[in-house]
Amino acid sequence: MANRNLYLSNTPVEEALSKYLAALEGLLNPKFEEIPAQESLDRITSEAVYARFSSPLFNAAAMDGITVKASAAAGARESNPLVLKETEDFIYVNTGDKLNHPYDAVIMAEDLIQADGERSVKIIESPSAWQHVRPIGEDIVAGEMIIPGRHKIRPVDIGVLFSGGITSVNVYSRPRVAIIPTGNEIIDISHLQNGEAPEEGRIIESNARMFEAQVKRAGAEGLRFDIVPDSYELLKSAVLKAADDFDMVLINAGSSAGTEDFTVQALRETGDVIVHGVAMKPGKPVILAVVNNKPVIGTPGYPVSAYLSFETFASPVLSVLTGSKEKAMQKTEAVISRRIVSSLKHREYVRVKTGRVDGRLVASPLARGAGAAMSLVRADGFCVIDQQSEGIEAGETAKIELCHSIEEIDRTLVAVGSHDLILDMISDMMSCKYGINLASTHAGSMAGLTALKRGECHIAPVHLLDEDTGGYNKGWIKKILPDKDISLIKGVGRVQGLIVKKNNPLGIKSIADICRCRFINRQRGAGTRLFLDHLLKGEGINPGSIDGYTREGVTHMAVAAAVHGGSADAGLGITSAAKALDLDFIPMGEEEYDFALFSNLLKSEMINIFIDVLKSPGFHQKLDGYTWAYAGEIVSL
Amino acid sequence: MANRNLYLSNTPVEEALSKYLAALEGLLNPKFEEIPAQESLDRITSEAVYARFSSPLFNAAAMDGITVKASAAAGARESNPLVLKETEDFIYVNTGDKLNHPYDAVIMAEDLIQADGERSVKIIESPSAWQHVRPIGEDIVAGEMIIPGRHKIRPVDIGVLFSGGITSVNVYSRPRVAIIPTGNEIIDISHLQNGEAPEEGRIIESNARMFEAQVKRAGAEGLRFDIVPDSYELLKSAVLKAADDFDMVLINAGSSAGTEDFTVQALRETGDVIVHGVAMKPGKPVILAVVNNKPVIGTPGYPVSAYLSFETFASPVLSVLTGSKEKAMQKTEAVISRRIVSSLKHREYVRVKTGRVDGRLVASPLARGAGAAMSLVRADGFCVIDQQSEGIEAGETAKIELCHSIEEIDRTLVAVGSHDLILDMISDMMSCKYGINLASTHAGSMAGLTALKRGECHIAPVHLLDEDTGGYNKGWIKKILPDKDISLIKGVGRVQGLIVKKNNPLGIKSIADICRCRFINRQRGAGTRLFLDHLLKGEGINPGSIDGYTREGVTHMAVAAAVHGGSADAGLGITSAAKALDLDFIPMGEEEYDFALFSNLLKSEMINIFIDVLKSPGFHQKLDGYTWAYAGEIVSL
Repeated sequence: MANRNLYLSNTPVEEALSKYLAALEGLLNPKFEEIPAQESLDRITSEAVYARFSSPLFNAAAMDGITVKASAAAGARESNPLVLKETEDFIYVNTGDKLNHPYDAVIMAEDLIQADGERSVKIIESPSAWQHVRPIGEDIVAGEMIIPGRHKIRPVDIGVLFSGGITSVNVYSRPRVAIIPTGNEIIDISHLQNGEAPEEGRIIESNARMFEAQVKRAGAEGLRFDIVPDSYELLKSAVLKAADDFDMVLINAGSSAGTEDFTVQALRETGDVIVHGVAMKPGKPVILAVVNNKPVIGTPGYPVSAYLSFETFASPVLSVLTGSKEKAMQKTEAVISRRIVSSLKHREYVRVKTGRVDGRLVASPLARGAGAAMSLVRADGFCVIDQQSEGIEAGETAKIELCHSIEEIDRTLVAVGSHDLILDMISDMMSCKYGINLASTHAGSMAGLTALKRGECHIAPVHLLDEDTGGYNKGWIKKILPDKDISLIKGVGRVQGLIVKKNNPLGIKSIADICRCRFINRQRGAGTRLFLDHLLKGEGINPGSIDGYTREGVTHMAVAAAVHGGSADAGLGITSAAKALDLDFIPMGEEEYDFALFSNLLKSEMINIFIDVLKSPGFHQKLDGYTWAYAGEIVSL
Repeated sequence: MANRNLYLSNTPVEEALSKYLAALEGLLNPKFEEIPAQESLDRITSEAVYARFSSPLFNAAAMDGITVKASAAAGARESNPLVLKETEDFIYVNTGDKLNHPYDAVIMAEDLIQADGERSVKIIESPSAWQHVRPIGEDIVAGEMIIPGRHKIRPVDIGVLFSGGITSVNVYSRPRVAIIPTGNEIIDISHLQNGEAPEEGRIIESNARMFEAQVKRAGAEGLRFDIVPDSYELLKSAVLKAADDFDMVLINAGSSAGTEDFTVQALRETGDVIVHGVAMKPGKPVILAVVNNKPVIGTPGYPVSAYLSFETFASPVLSVLTGSKEKAMQKTEAVISRRIVSSLKHREYVRVKTGRVDGRLVASPLARGAGAAMSLVRADGFCVIDQQSEGIEAGETAKIELCHSIEEIDRTLVAVGSHDLILDMISDMMSCKYGINLASTHAGSMAGLTALKRGECHIAPVHLLDEDTGGYNKGWIKKILPDKDISLIKGVGRVQGLIVKKNNPLGIKSIADICRCRFINRQRGAGTRLFLDHLLKGEGINPGSIDGYTREGVTHMAVAAAVHGGSADAGLGITSAAKALDLDFIPMGEEEYDFALFSNLLKSEMINIFIDVLKSPGFHQKLDGYTWAYAGEIVSL
């Protein structure tokens, strides 16, 4: 247990950031460059831009018509029309044409009456001086500030730059950020032979790739270094080189307290470690250091921790160098659907899936593990629980930081309930064809109905066997949502069975055989678990006698993965999950996988698109191991 | 008056768009391409992406500590500690390490007690199987959909792509858009000799530059053509070539009804004009056409019309080709500060400046002319007035489409009132140094005080001479805002005088001399106009005897520009405006330019930053023709 850095500090987030920025005071010097105006989109001005020319540059006709000298056309009335002669009294102009002395007014084409004489017009109203004239400088006056400093240039700004005679602008240079992935277990994807999976025990490098994109989003340029193995000397020399050549350095992993975590030692030796350990979750073991007067941040290895430590610490530092004033995330409020308990030890970033259900923005917490990168992908945002708070009760309104726009969330059909791979297919078809998102949380059938009841989702995918009637879904819905106007959109018929290793080495044939192998079950409330209990009861088997009855996978795929990975010999699940991982499958029974929803939603556009997809031949063609005779049909309960 | 296309249709916006999309049905075929995953940031997937590998690929330690076989470590209790031997009973693991058979549980380093024997540890709690283990596929299961189709790829998605073993993704190709600027009067900025202003009557091309950026923002690639002169044949051949080689064509200007407007004729001859003339303002004369099965849009020449016709018609067409689901603008609600009257003839897009004043989001309409490109630059968004609406009353809440985030608006200090060039300097300094925006609307001193009263702004820049006392500002504030707790932040002393042509060719010396020249006045309510009236009264001059007393410029710079451009001989204004355009200046008196605000705002961060800037030597150094002895001092009223 030598060399373990067990003792991280637990510095509060704001304090850690201010300490770090204070240590960097005077060291973060943005650079500037002059670039052509037409290449300046999304760059940030380093100083105000002043117009060189006025716009318009001259007094110009604001309408199509004729220009006249107002004083010479005075006195025209309905009862006293005035005839004007071309060239002598007026000339024709189009919008934008220059008004030349002595003309000082424009009469619109619509107000002109055909006169008898050739090249003449009649008017019945006298013009006032400067009417329908865009005076010189009306839009922009030479010398006027057209764009302030530290402003992110938009398309309209570019238009105005050109109108104002500006061909180049001074902007913040993009800072250069070195990204150093570390760790013996990490392998670059390009080193995989023929696209094979990495050998066991190794992990594909992904955080540095994510950082590269985060750095780009932040308006900087990232350069990924080769992966540095767990060697103190190699890491030290990589850090020193990076801190020499770059404006900022990010080191991934090696920031925790394991035996191979050299990062903090390397940073202590090469520079100053300002903070090691922050009261945030995920992201606690972050290291904030200064080497060679450059900011160097050691980020934790778990993807969610890595992401959050970038957003929380690297982003504010970078924004000093890029001039950016933007916050990545928009703030809003949402009703929290399930109780979130959090410790007073840290600020916690709980990923949430949000949806507009019944007019309310509802946020449901997702998986909280630091390793759950998919929870970041699925999340619409974060519910940030302050260090001083012990959590949020279900039904309370809380502040949410959104990763994308409210409009996007409003275009999302929220499903909570049982998991099936067809949800992915439907999601893809809805998104590609209709621009509507389907966000599904895999919580099991029972949890789906409860979420429906609490107004947390639009639809609940369910497959619940009613033992009394032998029928599916209706019975349970009436039990859990009595007196509610619920309908069922019929989904697919699917086969449940035992998922076992390829070629079934243990020769599993019946449900009784699971007593002699390592089993993996589904979580409580999952329809599949109810079905297992039903099968066990039928055979008179005591659940306690099954090795692994209490081990829970939360999706069919998680169960299949455990069997595929060898940590379990069998699990109950659907055909498609076994097929996806090329496993053997022993059918145990067919069931109905449907979608419960409040009947008033049947009129909504999103639900109608959902039903259209369920009924579409394109969807049916993709099904393998399912029946779809009733798909999309509506059953009132 | 031959060949005038006076007769545009007035098709409602939605109808025009659906007609156009219907005519393009089957013609807009997005193209797809396969690109490396690390280059996919902000690209849009053309199909769902499924994981190739699981993540983790193996059962992995979720904590630093030791791995054990749970069954072999059973029975440990506080009263019955168990000693485990390295290699025999356990091995040390770091977070992320693979668990090898037969180990099936992890005990955290924190729960280990030093044992007496070498290479031994003691535990006082027995582990349960699979505790602190990240099971294979916990995050991603091979075969699972990780990213849906038609999804814009973010940094977190890139991380997950790599974790899932994906090295390339199929995305929408960027459509190619031809941008054709037209018009004899238009000149490319690169053709100006030595950066000289264009010769009179010519206009610097700016809309195609703006389109290029809009096209890029929309996820497409724009190519600007050389400017096509007003020649029917040249235009026709440019359009035909562009419709051959590109996915979409934008033609700028020539969409109205002037004599030189060939566009609609060229499009009628080369293809089908679906709509010419839409009930929107600005933007009415837009042409929606199909040439060679490609969308071709003729956009009006005024910058605001050009911008809006792109957003309204080009954007939705492009999004079919790019796969984008994003709306450019976020929607919110704001209190409308001043009455907006709109015609039933069209949907009107009124640019608004918004600010958070006293907790309310307030939107003030800006200049409504189609030529006012600066109003687009200054706007925070649009208040869209439906064709069925005659407008919005002051104080009503209306829907606003925002161009930037609420956070940005919340960081904006809103000034409405008198214009001075120092506002630009202060704005620049606040933005660059503190990231705070100063948005100033030039409405004149009186209008500023009224805006303050109505809660439309934070500060009102004023310079109002009290004729009774000869003092500045205090008297008028008490008159207009009686019984309110108002303070004054002292600004600068500045000199007002007559702005005349360089070398003063008319020999203007006193206020009486303006009776013998063409004058340009300021708008009613402007402090400068009050000062003029005061001077005229002193000299006993009748305003009616002044040629141009009723001609109004809305800023000092607009007045200076009129003199500079030759349409006026003299105007009253401040030194710095004359200096900016190299004009002569005859001083008439010094005045106090200050900032009125509600006293409770003095505590706010934005106001304190504003005061800091007013007091800063950096600001004083930039002043030329001003005094600043009291700048930043606070006067209670």
